[in-house]
Amino acid sequence: MNFISDNTAGASPRVMAALAAANDGPASGYGSDDWTKRVEERLSALFEREVAAFLVTTGTAANALALASVVKPWGAVLTHEESHIVEDECGAPEFFSNGAKLVDLPGTGGKLTPEAVARALGYLNEGSFHNVQAQALSLTQATECGTIYTPEEVRALKQAVAARRLTVHMDGSRFANALVTLGCTPAEITWKAGVDVLSFGGTKNGAWAVEAVVFFDPAQADEMKWRRKRAGQTLSKGRFLGAQFEALLAEDHWLDLARHANAQAKRLADAAVDGGQARLAWPSQANEVFLILPAATQARLEAAGVRYHSWPGRSLAPDNALREGEIVGRFVMSFATEPADVGRLIATIAG
Amino acid sequence: MNFISDNTAGASPRVMAALAAANDGPASGYGSDDWTKRVEERLSALFEREVAAFLVTTGTAANALALASVVKPWGAVLTHEESHIVEDECGAPEFFSNGAKLVDLPGTGGKLTPEAVARALGYLNEGSFHNVQAQALSLTQATECGTIYTPEEVRALKQAVAARRLTVHMDGSRFANALVTLGCTPAEITWKAGVDVLSFGGTKNGAWAVEAVVFFDPAQADEMKWRRKRAGQTLSKGRFLGAQFEALLAEDHWLDLARHANAQAKRLADAAVDGGQARLAWPSQANEVFLILPAATQARLEAAGVRYHSWPGRSLAPDNALREGEIVGRFVMSFATEPADVGRLIATIAG
Amino acid sequence: MNFISDNTAGASPRVMAALAAANDGPASGYGSDDWTKRVEERLSALFEREVAAFLVTTGTAANALALASVVKPWGAVLTHEESHIVEDECGAPEFFSNGAKLVDLPGTGGKLTPEAVARALGYLNEGSFHNVQAQALSLTQATECGTIYTPEEVRALKQAVAARRLTVHMDGSRFANALVTLGCTPAEITWKAGVDVLSFGGTKNGAWAVEAVVFFDPAQADEMKWRRKRAGQTLSKGRFLGAQFEALLAEDHWLDLARHANAQAKRLADAAVDGGQARLAWPSQANEVFLILPAATQARLEAAGVRYHSWPGRSLAPDNALREGEIVGRFVMSFATEPADVGRLIATIAG
Amino acid sequence: MNFISDNTAGASPRVMAALAAANDGPASGYGSDDWTKRVEERLSALFEREVAAFLVTTGTAANALALASVVKPWGAVLTHEESHIVEDECGAPEFFSNGAKLVDLPGTGGKLTPEAVARALGYLNEGSFHNVQAQALSLTQATECGTIYTPEEVRALKQAVAARRLTVHMDGSRFANALVTLGCTPAEITWKAGVDVLSFGGTKNGAWAVEAVVFFDPAQADEMKWRRKRAGQTLSKGRFLGAQFEALLAEDHWLDLARHANAQAKRLADAAVDGGQARLAWPSQANEVFLILPAATQARLEAAGVRYHSWPGRSLAPDNALREGEIVGRFVMSFATEPADVGRLIATIAG
Repeated sequence: MNFISDNTAGASPRVMAALAAANDGPASGYGSDDWTKRVEERLSALFEREVAAFLVTTGTAANALALASVVKPWGAVLTHEESHIVEDECGAPEFFSNGAKLVDLPGTGGKLTPEAVARALGYLNEGSFHNVQAQALSLTQATECGTIYTPEEVRALKQAVAARRLTVHMDGSRFANALVTLGCTPAEITWKAGVDVLSFGGTKNGAWAVEAVVFFDPAQADEMKWRRKRAGQTLSKGRFLGAQFEALLAEDHWLDLARHANAQAKRLADAAVDGGQARLAWPSQANEVFLILPAATQARLEAAGVRYHSWPGRSLAPDNALREGEIVGRFVMSFATEPADVGRLIATIAG
Repeated sequence: MNFISDNTAGASPRVMAALAAANDGPASGYGSDDWTKRVEERLSALFEREVAAFLVTTGTAANALALASVVKPWGAVLTHEESHIVEDECGAPEFFSNGAKLVDLPGTGGKLTPEAVARALGYLNEGSFHNVQAQALSLTQATECGTIYTPEEVRALKQAVAARRLTVHMDGSRFANALVTLGCTPAEITWKAGVDVLSFGGTKNGAWAVEAVVFFDPAQADEMKWRRKRAGQTLSKGRFLGAQFEALLAEDHWLDLARHANAQAKRLADAAVDGGQARLAWPSQANEVFLILPAATQARLEAAGVRYHSWPGRSLAPDNALREGEIVGRFVMSFATEPADVGRLIATIAG
Repeated sequence: MNFISDNTAGASPRVMAALAAANDGPASGYGSDDWTKRVEERLSALFEREVAAFLVTTGTAANALALASVVKPWGAVLTHEESHIVEDECGAPEFFSNGAKLVDLPGTGGKLTPEAVARALGYLNEGSFHNVQAQALSLTQATECGTIYTPEEVRALKQAVAARRLTVHMDGSRFANALVTLGCTPAEITWKAGVDVLSFGGTKNGAWAVEAVVFFDPAQADEMKWRRKRAGQTLSKGRFLGAQFEALLAEDHWLDLARHANAQAKRLADAAVDGGQARLAWPSQANEVFLILPAATQARLEAAGVRYHSWPGRSLAPDNALREGEIVGRFVMSFATEPADVGRLIATIAG
Repeated sequence: MNFISDNTAGASPRVMAALAAANDGPASGYGSDDWTKRVEERLSALFEREVAAFLVTTGTAANALALASVVKPWGAVLTHEESHIVEDECGAPEFFSNGAKLVDLPGTGGKLTPEAVARALGYLNEGSFHNVQAQALSLTQATECGTIYTPEEVRALKQAVAARRLTVHMDGSRFANALVTLGCTPAEITWKAGVDVLSFGGTKNGAWAVEAVVFFDPAQADEMKWRRKRAGQTLSKGRFLGAQFEALLAEDHWLDLARHANAQAKRLADAAVDGGQARLAWPSQANEVFLILPAATQARLEAAGVRYHSWPGRSLAPDNALREGEIVGRFVMSFATEPADVGRLIATIAG
């Protein structure tokens, strides 16, 4: 039983079928193919406004290209201290932006707060050439702790940075998982709430390797074609990217895939809370469950061959701290997670 | 009839089948999967020595990562003025290397000569802090003009840079096409002739998107895992890359695909030469044919809806210069090129 | 009365005299002049071991070049959240290092603690390609809060990072001021305590514009000549730098200058504590005094035309927090500070 | 006798006197001092229009900051293959610009021609994301071969790049020497002829270390304050820079210094041509003389202890090629060159 990540799965059958269907005959290269063009149109429709979208192969590339497009080399990006861009991208944002600074902020459950953001802005002098300049805020939806931001919360963050005109970036590698929980439209949780640029994840959702950088203000995308090419992210057989994303978006396949993953997470979260053999580190609001596991539970999981990540406890609320012998375990559900496996996992935890 | 490029095709059926077969069940992420591991072993066997190999999605990424691994930011890379790294990668090598300089050298048929290399080295003072330091030579196999280097020619270039200890990089986005013409082993045209690091192309050969950076001295690869990740080129579902490359290498599929492409190129080159309605810009030695096309031939091609690229004539030999009204046309064959199309193309040129 | 900074002064008369004396006749360029050579030798003698030293014009350049020499682009530098490299260099370390990350740590009085360092290292996975790699620790001597590290404290920090083999950098823009308080040898507070590379400040000490990057392991300096030149920091008339630093070091002029500045700071600190019209934010251990100023005192200072910087209170100890109306004011003494001005300042504060 | 360079001299007595005069009392830091402000105003007057000027310490920094301000990381700068930015700055322009490409063009006497520029532009596709984008042209005044561009020649280059809207940069490390030969106004040879940004040299002209980056369109300077600081080029004791440049500009001191240097060069050039023991490699139009020296002349120079640089002959006109045993020798005059030394040099050459 493997709950390590939502990227241990392959591609969804519909994505594979779309690839096979896209494989005949010649197609224009470098993103000028029909599949990609259709995706670009589809994204404008989905978000209810003209967007500029760029397909790339990884979330790291999507985030780094998005941020490099909106901050100067002497810019600063306010972000959570456990965000993916800080913890898991080996400095890609700094590389792509030629040295912009990620300002790492604390926050329970992986979430930024307007207070922490305001405090940080207070230390970053506007206009002074001595200081890096706060130019973007990056939030993760769903967060690295499996929590989500409501539109109101996004709006509050936007307000906290509005006077300084920061660009708001959303790392949406699990955007679909957040969206199906929120039950709102893609527009409502993005540009209508203040998001300027979105890394729209496809890979964890059920593709092989595709993410879209979506600019809600196309003017901010003016240089992306050069940035993407120069980063080695402009695939010559661009239809490979277009076909994957098109398959995800067709007939709400992406939302169906996310609903499955989230439902499995909910089963586990509900059961764990009830059973008493574990407790939630943070509310499980998407497709990840973070459980505080006593030693005995850890032992049962190991005996059963359950694979999961242990996770840092930095974002735990003070009243939910780890006790002796406890660790935080991360269990991730994907479109491919077998309900029977979740059942066995629940039973194992229950003991 | 589309002869624009060898990347207008999709993936070979065997590559698609391998992907489908690789799609079941969970797999380790980020290149630690079984497919990738098997490819790494297979490459060591293929090249008859221990190599360090890293799979990435594009040739631009492969070249830029390879070069950034072997030159300092103040390093210089000697290369042909029409090489892909100079002309078609939007400055990716400079970006990945933090500003190394590509020193662009002339040469007939897209090929570097020991003389041009020696002349360039004469202007790059060794050890002086005023000057960028010559640290690598990059040659393309097959070249952007469809010609190839023999092992002897590679060896001569190696000798030209040996006293200065330059690392020799081979951009092998069409490595398979060169190899089947040469009829030698992969080892003979690479490390045995002096190549230190190879961008081993899969995409143009019949994959969706996979290239291998192959270091013949694994010590030069010590930092690649960080460089690749930081470049957004470490795919989470790494088996997607591994499965493609494994399918190419299995049962010499890659060589079969290249032989088909080269054979179609040879048909066109032979016919064009015989017909008198076009002449070769350079010998056609791989899967590309560069024809000098008089105006009348251009008109017939246009009327027949034949798609091809017009090409700069910088690398033409002095005794083969363009005459009034002539252009150079590039016709590229791939694994998917239909022989019947080539027949029609030949007939169209013949008039 | 101007207590804004120790760089509002010009150069000490002896430095000016040395420049005038150095101005005759031709001299070798780019740091190969006799003055620079003598400084390099003098620094080895001063530090009681063979060092590699490089003169540059600013502290920002010294710090950024030092750090870029010892960390990879994917490296991380542990440092205090209010250090000069974080707060006052507009991202120069990130620029020079091609994107290394400064990990900002809290600490009372601007000082790093082994505990904070150990905690940060716990979040930076060693060897993982997902994460930036902790490769250096940078401490400031004297700190931005006017405090100093003892050799024991430096040694404790070295110990905290020894298992991870981090390079220890000391930002010594006020090295002289720290040293005269400590009363130890330059060797004792640097390499004997674990420092690997020092930014040895000259400008604030009494020069126009000169700092030395001193590598205690010359092997770490192998690439500096290229880095410095490429940064536009290799002056053609290098004797200008050499002559300044030589004048500082001659007959302990640098220590005399620092002693004067520190003595003035001590007068102010002592008086402020006694008077009750202000209190120390942190112990005044070098040439800076940080006073917590009630509103009435602020008013008197303004009325008297006293110029000083107000300062963030982030590094205040919890039991010394700001009360209603209070601010932290920074008063900096230099070699040129007039004792009479300090007297007037003291009287103004006393009211 | 040392004719190695115009940077082997120190500073002119008037520059030293100005420094001494500027050394009293406190002054605002980081370029906000009165000396620097006066220089900025003076430069606007000198160039007969509002300019944005930034003082830095080296020509390498001035050039690299100027170019980084006007090209994107994927930009290309057309320049002579023997220009200082290509040959003598260790890749600083690439570093500061995050990887822009210098496109090296041939030309007799170190000069760019509209034809070479047009040819290069033909290979750099505008707007294509595959290619670096031609965004600047950099010419050197006086050139590295001691020749100069007339306003008409600058205008012709501007015209050659006008359709592509390239920014024209002038590397004027020897601007004064060119100007006194031309006899025109600073405005006529810069913005009136099409120059957008000038590296205005002070160091070779008689300062210790100061250059001004002068933007004729202040809008192009919007980011310079961050770029300069981040490069470690914003001196805290900024009056050191301001006082030097002010002294140069006062009462046309800079032009007097250049006239002396040029006059000495003219003496040598005239004598060498007459004597038959050497011939000019290129016309001597500023303060440098490049002589083609037969073996016998070389021997006499060596015997007499004359120091000069031997120089590459790449820019020689075909009808002035080196013959057996000949080399090109560079003799540079400065404000400090003793006329008697030039007399001895002439006699030595004459034999």
